[in-house]
Amino acid sequence: MARESDFEWCEDRVPVPGPGQVLVRSEYLSVDPGSRVWMWPTDTAMPVQPIGTVMRGIAMGTVIASRCPTYPQGCTVQGVLGWQDYALAEGDGHALWRVPDAEHLTPEKRMTLCGHVGLAAYFGLLEIGQARLGETLVVSSAAGAVGSLVGQIGKLRGCRVVGIAGSRQKCRWLSDELGFDAAIDYKSESVFRRLQELCPGGIDVYFDNVGGPLLEDALANLNIGARVVACGMVSVYNDLAGVLSLPPGPNNLLNLTLRRSRMQGFLYSDYRARAEEVFHRLLAWHAQGRLQVRTDTMEGLHQAPLALNRLFDGSSCGKLIIRLS
Amino acid sequence: MARESDFEWCEDRVPVPGPGQVLVRSEYLSVDPGSRVWMWPTDTAMPVQPIGTVMRGIAMGTVIASRCPTYPQGCTVQGVLGWQDYALAEGDGHALWRVPDAEHLTPEKRMTLCGHVGLAAYFGLLEIGQARLGETLVVSSAAGAVGSLVGQIGKLRGCRVVGIAGSRQKCRWLSDELGFDAAIDYKSESVFRRLQELCPGGIDVYFDNVGGPLLEDALANLNIGARVVACGMVSVYNDLAGVLSLPPGPNNLLNLTLRRSRMQGFLYSDYRARAEEVFHRLLAWHAQGRLQVRTDTMEGLHQAPLALNRLFDGSSCGKLIIRLS
Repeated sequence: MARESDFEWCEDRVPVPGPGQVLVRSEYLSVDPGSRVWMWPTDTAMPVQPIGTVMRGIAMGTVIASRCPTYPQGCTVQGVLGWQDYALAEGDGHALWRVPDAEHLTPEKRMTLCGHVGLAAYFGLLEIGQARLGETLVVSSAAGAVGSLVGQIGKLRGCRVVGIAGSRQKCRWLSDELGFDAAIDYKSESVFRRLQELCPGGIDVYFDNVGGPLLEDALANLNIGARVVACGMVSVYNDLAGVLSLPPGPNNLLNLTLRRSRMQGFLYSDYRARAEEVFHRLLAWHAQGRLQVRTDTMEGLHQAPLALNRLFDGSSCGKLIIRLS
Repeated sequence: MARESDFEWCEDRVPVPGPGQVLVRSEYLSVDPGSRVWMWPTDTAMPVQPIGTVMRGIAMGTVIASRCPTYPQGCTVQGVLGWQDYALAEGDGHALWRVPDAEHLTPEKRMTLCGHVGLAAYFGLLEIGQARLGETLVVSSAAGAVGSLVGQIGKLRGCRVVGIAGSRQKCRWLSDELGFDAAIDYKSESVFRRLQELCPGGIDVYFDNVGGPLLEDALANLNIGARVVACGMVSVYNDLAGVLSLPPGPNNLLNLTLRRSRMQGFLYSDYRARAEEVFHRLLAWHAQGRLQVRTDTMEGLHQAPLALNRLFDGSSCGKLIIRLS
């Protein structure tokens, strides 16, 4: 787990944007399992973060000074702005995106739908997973930010949806509130056996947020032609003590061959060019009452290390966000 | 390893074909790593083989009696005909395919190009792997039947090709005779380090025949957008003592996410409908001297168990075939 002592609290002058740059006053910080990966002492999807630099993280805020016409003063943006109150960003880079207006929506819900969470759920399920009408979709970390959207979008697309989550309470929320067809509590049930019972024709799409033993259980229950969406692997993010000590992977990858299936990874940022269209679709579904968003808000940047750990101890549900003061 | 005592030699009357059936006199038996999987006490891509039935296997032979117009008497066929001299097959099932005529070609080479080996190499590399001009292709078991074709087809498609094989001699054959750009002897070299050196831009296509530690080394060196072709996993076929004791998988599957890559399995039989076109393409490449086929022939059905083990002890090179007497 991350420790508070791994971080240092620093204060500095608010910077002034240069040509092409914008200055953002961040208001909400997204706490994501992937933030833990950015603490690894190795390059991942992004270069390693040197000790002593601002912790990487996605935030939403307001442009308060701009020297870039794409992001005028006053507009709401999200991006990889770091664990800080004020951030400079390059307007022509890939760090920022505009957040569309969404009346009647809390900022936290707007941030969730119109950000990396919405993109990961939508494109992961429909582009990478190619989920189709009548198919069986299983999603892990189903009560999490991405997982809970994935299951609901799966229902909207006519899939049978089975969620895997870490408590009876979370499972009830999935079944009773979000309309999942079934939910498995991996802490008290045999996932392998429950998947066999609940998916007698096999899993067509497994949306994987966790890796580890649940991935093995899912691989053991694939239908022919299945797609495993490798969105994340929360189970290994904290297990790292140097890259070489990562825990071993599933012993039944051969099932990808025997079941003519594929496992495919992606990053939300691959879909930035199509983000706007999808944000509006997600907002419309929400406005129509067809897509629920649950958020879990904590107060103050100083809580970020604690918040990060809550993603790994099972105590959070929905999208975890820190409101910056 | 398989033992001779796992098998029993049986003799019976030659059967008579019923309506829609053909009787084949098998002349060549293909010995494949996958045959070992068919001995597992569990369903795989095909149902489990009950003890006491004919061992499953692919063979080539001549139709000597036919009650199916698709396969008239005298034509050469291949199919899942079993470890036996005479086999009945359903003409309208998926067990058989016609082998085109190929003058100036030994029966063993004809069997290799115009069978599951040719299909697996061609479709695995080009359909599943989507290998493209200028990309870096790495293939394991590169001196094997499928691997040696994959590397050569990769060269024909303009890829840089690196082979991984189990001896200096095999590596020299790949580099000097087959035109591979480089070859790694996994028994005497660090595959991880050699891949880093030989593929500085990362691997675009990894054609995997073995799984195990080599898969982990390849996953550690993927380029963004890479494709891992899960053709087979020879490293685990003999490790099974009941499905639950399979060795663990690679510890770095997360790289599929970080590198936005995919791993995809397939079976040659998925491409039966397009087989004829590909057989002719492979035969043409061979006739033009652009595609070499190496075969390794043993004599007599009684040698089949021994032959099967030669696929796992590194003593065979190219396609291993048994000539039936």
